[in-house]
Amino acid sequence: MSKERLIYLPLGGAGEIGMNCYVYGYGAPDKERLIVVDLGVTFPDMDTTPGVDLIFPDVTWLEERRDRIEGIFITHAHEDHVGAIGHLWSKLDAPVYARAFTAHHARRKMEEQGHNPDKVQVMGIWPEMRQFGPFNIGFLPVSHSIPESSAMVIETKGGRVIHTGDFKIDYDPGVGEAFDRDLWAEASKGGVKALVCDSTNIFSGTEGRSESSLAPEITRMVAEQPGMVVATTFASNVARVKTLAEAGIAAGRSVCLMGRAMRRMIEASVETGVLHDFPSTIQPEDARELPRENLMLIVTGSQGERRAASAQLARGKYMGLTLAEGDTFLFSSKTIPGNERGVISIMNQFSEQGVDVVDDDGGRYHVSGHANRPDIQAMHDLVKPQMVIPMHGEHRHLREHVKLAKSGGRAGVLAPNGTCVSLSGNKPEVVEYVETGRVYLDGAVQVGALDGIVRDRIRMALNGHAVVTMIIDEDDAPLGDPWVELMGLPDKGRSNTSLVDVMEADLGQFLQRANDKTLMDDAKLEDELRKVARQTALDEIGRKPEVTVVVSRLN
Amino acid sequence: MSKERLIYLPLGGAGEIGMNCYVYGYGAPDKERLIVVDLGVTFPDMDTTPGVDLIFPDVTWLEERRDRIEGIFITHAHEDHVGAIGHLWSKLDAPVYARAFTAHHARRKMEEQGHNPDKVQVMGIWPEMRQFGPFNIGFLPVSHSIPESSAMVIETKGGRVIHTGDFKIDYDPGVGEAFDRDLWAEASKGGVKALVCDSTNIFSGTEGRSESSLAPEITRMVAEQPGMVVATTFASNVARVKTLAEAGIAAGRSVCLMGRAMRRMIEASVETGVLHDFPSTIQPEDARELPRENLMLIVTGSQGERRAASAQLARGKYMGLTLAEGDTFLFSSKTIPGNERGVISIMNQFSEQGVDVVDDDGGRYHVSGHANRPDIQAMHDLVKPQMVIPMHGEHRHLREHVKLAKSGGRAGVLAPNGTCVSLSGNKPEVVEYVETGRVYLDGAVQVGALDGIVRDRIRMALNGHAVVTMIIDEDDAPLGDPWVELMGLPDKGRSNTSLVDVMEADLGQFLQRANDKTLMDDAKLEDELRKVARQTALDEIGRKPEVTVVVSRLN
Repeated sequence: MSKERLIYLPLGGAGEIGMNCYVYGYGAPDKERLIVVDLGVTFPDMDTTPGVDLIFPDVTWLEERRDRIEGIFITHAHEDHVGAIGHLWSKLDAPVYARAFTAHHARRKMEEQGHNPDKVQVMGIWPEMRQFGPFNIGFLPVSHSIPESSAMVIETKGGRVIHTGDFKIDYDPGVGEAFDRDLWAEASKGGVKALVCDSTNIFSGTEGRSESSLAPEITRMVAEQPGMVVATTFASNVARVKTLAEAGIAAGRSVCLMGRAMRRMIEASVETGVLHDFPSTIQPEDARELPRENLMLIVTGSQGERRAASAQLARGKYMGLTLAEGDTFLFSSKTIPGNERGVISIMNQFSEQGVDVVDDDGGRYHVSGHANRPDIQAMHDLVKPQMVIPMHGEHRHLREHVKLAKSGGRAGVLAPNGTCVSLSGNKPEVVEYVETGRVYLDGAVQVGALDGIVRDRIRMALNGHAVVTMIIDEDDAPLGDPWVELMGLPDKGRSNTSLVDVMEADLGQFLQRANDKTLMDDAKLEDELRKVARQTALDEIGRKPEVTVVVSRLN
Repeated sequence: MSKERLIYLPLGGAGEIGMNCYVYGYGAPDKERLIVVDLGVTFPDMDTTPGVDLIFPDVTWLEERRDRIEGIFITHAHEDHVGAIGHLWSKLDAPVYARAFTAHHARRKMEEQGHNPDKVQVMGIWPEMRQFGPFNIGFLPVSHSIPESSAMVIETKGGRVIHTGDFKIDYDPGVGEAFDRDLWAEASKGGVKALVCDSTNIFSGTEGRSESSLAPEITRMVAEQPGMVVATTFASNVARVKTLAEAGIAAGRSVCLMGRAMRRMIEASVETGVLHDFPSTIQPEDARELPRENLMLIVTGSQGERRAASAQLARGKYMGLTLAEGDTFLFSSKTIPGNERGVISIMNQFSEQGVDVVDDDGGRYHVSGHANRPDIQAMHDLVKPQMVIPMHGEHRHLREHVKLAKSGGRAGVLAPNGTCVSLSGNKPEVVEYVETGRVYLDGAVQVGALDGIVRDRIRMALNGHAVVTMIIDEDDAPLGDPWVELMGLPDKGRSNTSLVDVMEADLGQFLQRANDKTLMDDAKLEDELRKVARQTALDEIGRKPEVTVVVSRLN
């Protein structure tokens, strides 16, 4: 037996859906050469991360071993796979590899963060392979919901791994490569050690449907509408955008793309050659001149994002266009859990405008980009790996996927973020648990999820914030009365007088009673004043606020 | 034509799902005698109402006309119909009427807020009617998802209104009265002026299913589980709780109810005679002693509420009980939009414990308590009203329901909260728009939704809060340096030095340059200091925080 080993370590994406980041290593223990697959983001929410702009995986483990990194490989251009490349690249300082369309996006992200876009190199597709240290690596095309999605074929002396990336089995995806069963069978020949496999839709029991199955329904629906049709979908779903545009043209409508992400995606697709025959579109200024029944808009904002075109149209106007009674708005998308309130709010705003809203309607106008349970099973059966390692899923998805693997007689392991698994034996073996976590992009700064900054914001939001200031004179005696300012707290409480007044009176009384020892000890004084302020608030308004005390000493 | 008129005015529940409050009036314009149907709450969320405890309709319009109120009628005991009775009663000071089970809950809520529970009186069911000023009123039983749900039959000289309350058409609801078609036909005889009708499920196109259809599936599922079974549902769905308990007994398990709301609902049902044959249950302390395969828990927390039994079990332990590998957790419920993250988080915590989670699975283990579109149509056809007024729905639901009414040849009107509609003519006529809104219960205080308190909390959560304090001496000159305290903001920014230090330095520099006019004007000085602090933060951390400035003057 070789002393070298092949390891798998997820730093993000295993135990959550989002911020994918997977590490593979090969070599002597703790001296493995490493590759990184994907470097994505996840999105903040008001409940847990108010004010945060983006969330990244904590790559400290990698940063400490950056001299061992052979390269960073991006499977596809979704934000949860490529979104962090610009923000985290300087910590890893390794070359980045992707296919052309994905590289196009990765380069822009590098540039936006001030890095050299040439660090991103384009690779061809399997069977083309390139050697990176102990790894021989190829991009194996797979169908998903964005062009040029790829699985990674990772060949080492310790065996071959196929990392599916996000995938579905679609033999007619509209744009981009169809799932090529023969190519996958070929890539699996000679035996695959481990299939590291997308788990997103493991709970969907029916076989997945092809992207192309939507075209007839969408085309009919668009043709039937009396007024303007506005459709939204994920901007990166280029095939869907094309289907929508073609449905518009087929109904004799001019088509206008709105929203930066939408235009950017189509442009990138054309530039990189993945899209040849997109219908011609018109500009918003020309759209304004057309009769509404001759117009179709395709817009960003399928998740109810406040600044996207859909939300702006819902609030009234976007680029000079407004909707009206008789128009139709189509969500050719599903609502990602957590975004329901935003989407419903937009639906109701459209309703107030007299606009009919059509949603995916149980699959008539949207199909998922991920493999359902039978398709995952089909992937296991096609690749015939020795072991299955579920990834890209919450804990419950990974757990269910392990069950599926085992029911098919394959070894499987539930390896959430931080679980370092050796693939060298006949079964996956957990060899170490690595500290992992999240990093928040907060304005211009990256802060740790456990730094307490966001926790303090949540506390202010839940409890309000009272600021108490006072002055201690040269003789260590209070000078004047303490002063209270409130933010996010009611003006009046149970006694029906100003909360500020009651609090200042209680604080003043406390100071009259306070002894020198308290008055001379900043920490003690602040602590006591905080207690008084919190108790007064509890009595008056039934709630203890956050309290900041500032004691100024004149000596 | 009489100068008297019959009016309808929703103050809550029309244009939203929650905080139901509907007003009917009869009499000369602006002198109508009034009745109130339902007085419910809606629930806060972190996105829009952080720190808020409950949300009520703003009943100022009613409060200003309290001498004209004949009574408050509660259709059923769901929180969105009865939850505000204790909190708002003193503003209205009118007798409350309900059926026994509902009255039981209303009385408790009155007591909890220090009101006399005897203000709540029990009424029998239609054809029993009682006269209240110009209104002759009866409680017409209807099936829903809580015992003793009722429609209101409201008879006036201006015609008869049937206000459905929440309903479904269920001929075998398990607990409580089945939908009685003949009774409803009888109540509709002689002509109904207006049907004011539940719109919740207007977008569900298939006929609704009976509560009783679940029993076989639930019974089989519980019987098949190898370990402990824990099921959650809405505590108020007494029929479901009974079905679950019976499934447990049928599988040879002892059943334990956990969570205050769950036990309280069952007790109220037994006390008021709506439930006769609930299986015997055991106490948590006895449950701990049983082999897990002999145990079934029925617990609160189907919506992922943090303090409920389900969430506590997910975090580890509740009343001495813990789940383990091989146990099963059943959500016999649907997730209300907005609660997805909480529910998913619990599912994943259970997954980490090795517990199998089963959800409603497309209707196998849950049915809705509201009428679907075909059932709403059936209700129109049964009551044959002159006009339909959709209620209990978001704007989009009301709008679609009006369309349905019109497609059936009936007059309809889209009347969101605040729309005062005269029902006296042949068609509904909007006669006035009344100012409506929301009131927040915030700790012990009721605050207006537009008071700015919650807005400030959201701003602190999104932007953080900086507190700047400084002292101006007797000669109107700054004494010492300004002092900065941060909450919810990063320690360091772009210059990699303490943000507090940079801010204090910038503020100090500003003060050195400031002229007397600025230094002597509190408002101007605070404004300028705020600007400096915000600009420094923007430069350093890319974000402008909320800033509170406290200037203390020694003169």
